[in-house]
Amino acid sequence: MPARIENGVTIHSHERIDDLQCKGRRLIQDPARFCFGIDAVLLAGFASVRKGEKMLDLGTGTGIIPILLEAKTEGAAFYGLELQQESAEMAERSVRLNSVAGKITIITGDIKSSGQLFQRSYFDVVTSNPPYINCGGGLLNEDMPRAISRHELRCTLYDVCHAAGQLLRPAGRFYMVHRPQRLVDILYTLRQCNLEPKTLRFVQPKADKPPNLVLIESVRGGGPQLNVLPPLIIYDSNGGYTPETLEIYYGNR
Amino acid sequence: MPARIENGVTIHSHERIDDLQCKGRRLIQDPARFCFGIDAVLLAGFASVRKGEKMLDLGTGTGIIPILLEAKTEGAAFYGLELQQESAEMAERSVRLNSVAGKITIITGDIKSSGQLFQRSYFDVVTSNPPYINCGGGLLNEDMPRAISRHELRCTLYDVCHAAGQLLRPAGRFYMVHRPQRLVDILYTLRQCNLEPKTLRFVQPKADKPPNLVLIESVRGGGPQLNVLPPLIIYDSNGGYTPETLEIYYGNR
Repeated sequence: MPARIENGVTIHSHERIDDLQCKGRRLIQDPARFCFGIDAVLLAGFASVRKGEKMLDLGTGTGIIPILLEAKTEGAAFYGLELQQESAEMAERSVRLNSVAGKITIITGDIKSSGQLFQRSYFDVVTSNPPYINCGGGLLNEDMPRAISRHELRCTLYDVCHAAGQLLRPAGRFYMVHRPQRLVDILYTLRQCNLEPKTLRFVQPKADKPPNLVLIESVRGGGPQLNVLPPLIIYDSNGGYTPETLEIYYGNR
Repeated sequence: MPARIENGVTIHSHERIDDLQCKGRRLIQDPARFCFGIDAVLLAGFASVRKGEKMLDLGTGTGIIPILLEAKTEGAAFYGLELQQESAEMAERSVRLNSVAGKITIITGDIKSSGQLFQRSYFDVVTSNPPYINCGGGLLNEDMPRAISRHELRCTLYDVCHAAGQLLRPAGRFYMVHRPQRLVDILYTLRQCNLEPKTLRFVQPKADKPPNLVLIESVRGGGPQLNVLPPLIIYDSNGGYTPETLEIYYGNR
């Protein structure tokens, strides 16, 4: 299939367009590179952006997080920072495909240099769905774009938390999705970066299965009391989505 | 009711004897001081003591943890350290009431001085059900013995973790029960004390309620991967104990 044009935006032959089931928003993806998973959708459901707030997504990939949050919230300005030029360019086309270029800005750059890219304490909200697998851990995917999005090759958990701590205003909120296996690293690193974890929610595939994801809300300079929510259960005992999962996926149609 | 003698042990008139539902073990308690709760039973169910191992319970109170673990496991020697003289003396009588003085030793002393009381790296397993409420937090109970067991008046989370880190052999295991609200403090402090949290289990009163307790297994010098288990649910939707709770309570009768 040759490249085509939609809403003035080029869609290459190797790309596809997915309906995000959220106010008509669509997303360009390249199945050979990296497609969003349930973690991005859950993070966008967990993060809160209030009226007039400015948010930044660190390592935005396809741009799904700012695109969903722009659709779902009354935030004023949404930014996505992405290291990989090709991903950033594709995310930028998704922004134009949805005609939200006035509210969402995609920037190509390194999380480790974000102190030079943005003003300190500029954002009310920072989000991130960072690489889950720490340096040296896991089998390395030979396909580089995918490996960079899954492994801490180009940025570590510390790099992400440090950047969030620098860029958030005092009392600003940082939302992250990650693996429960890394929880000690995560909570330890957040506190090191002056981001106090305040709300934790585990995600379990089923009620009797261990969690495979964890959602964390941290507050810059917050006090040391953590609120652990009941776990989010994805599938009921019949294998269908639970009402809460359906609400997160389709509640904003 | 006047004091009486059972199995050669004095039971004072203000005390009562509870059946621990575990191999006939009984516990002397003073309802005016402090009675054990579900947390102690869950901790004893969560902790593993292998054949021939030596264990120590920090802040043992009534002595319930070493008494239950002696009954349930093939450990070689069980110790309970308790600061309050009156509690330690009562725990010691419970040990004699159960005729297990050859295996369980109650020692009166301060967790902060445990480095002088015991040899470093002596224990295979350390357990603790420490005071949950941090200094300055919560309403202070005027009844001192109870206040000491609930608030960090006489020992902090750091004191407990530091002592465990000193007294455990390399790769020795530390089991603790605590409140989810303190989870960041707990995981941060454990890692500071070279005790890497390896297994975490939240305890929820019901499947749709947030957890009110958390069980943590840490390993001295362990690597940084955490195993988060499915939550333990105490009551089913009809208000009865779940099968797993019944198993923990009555599985060793």
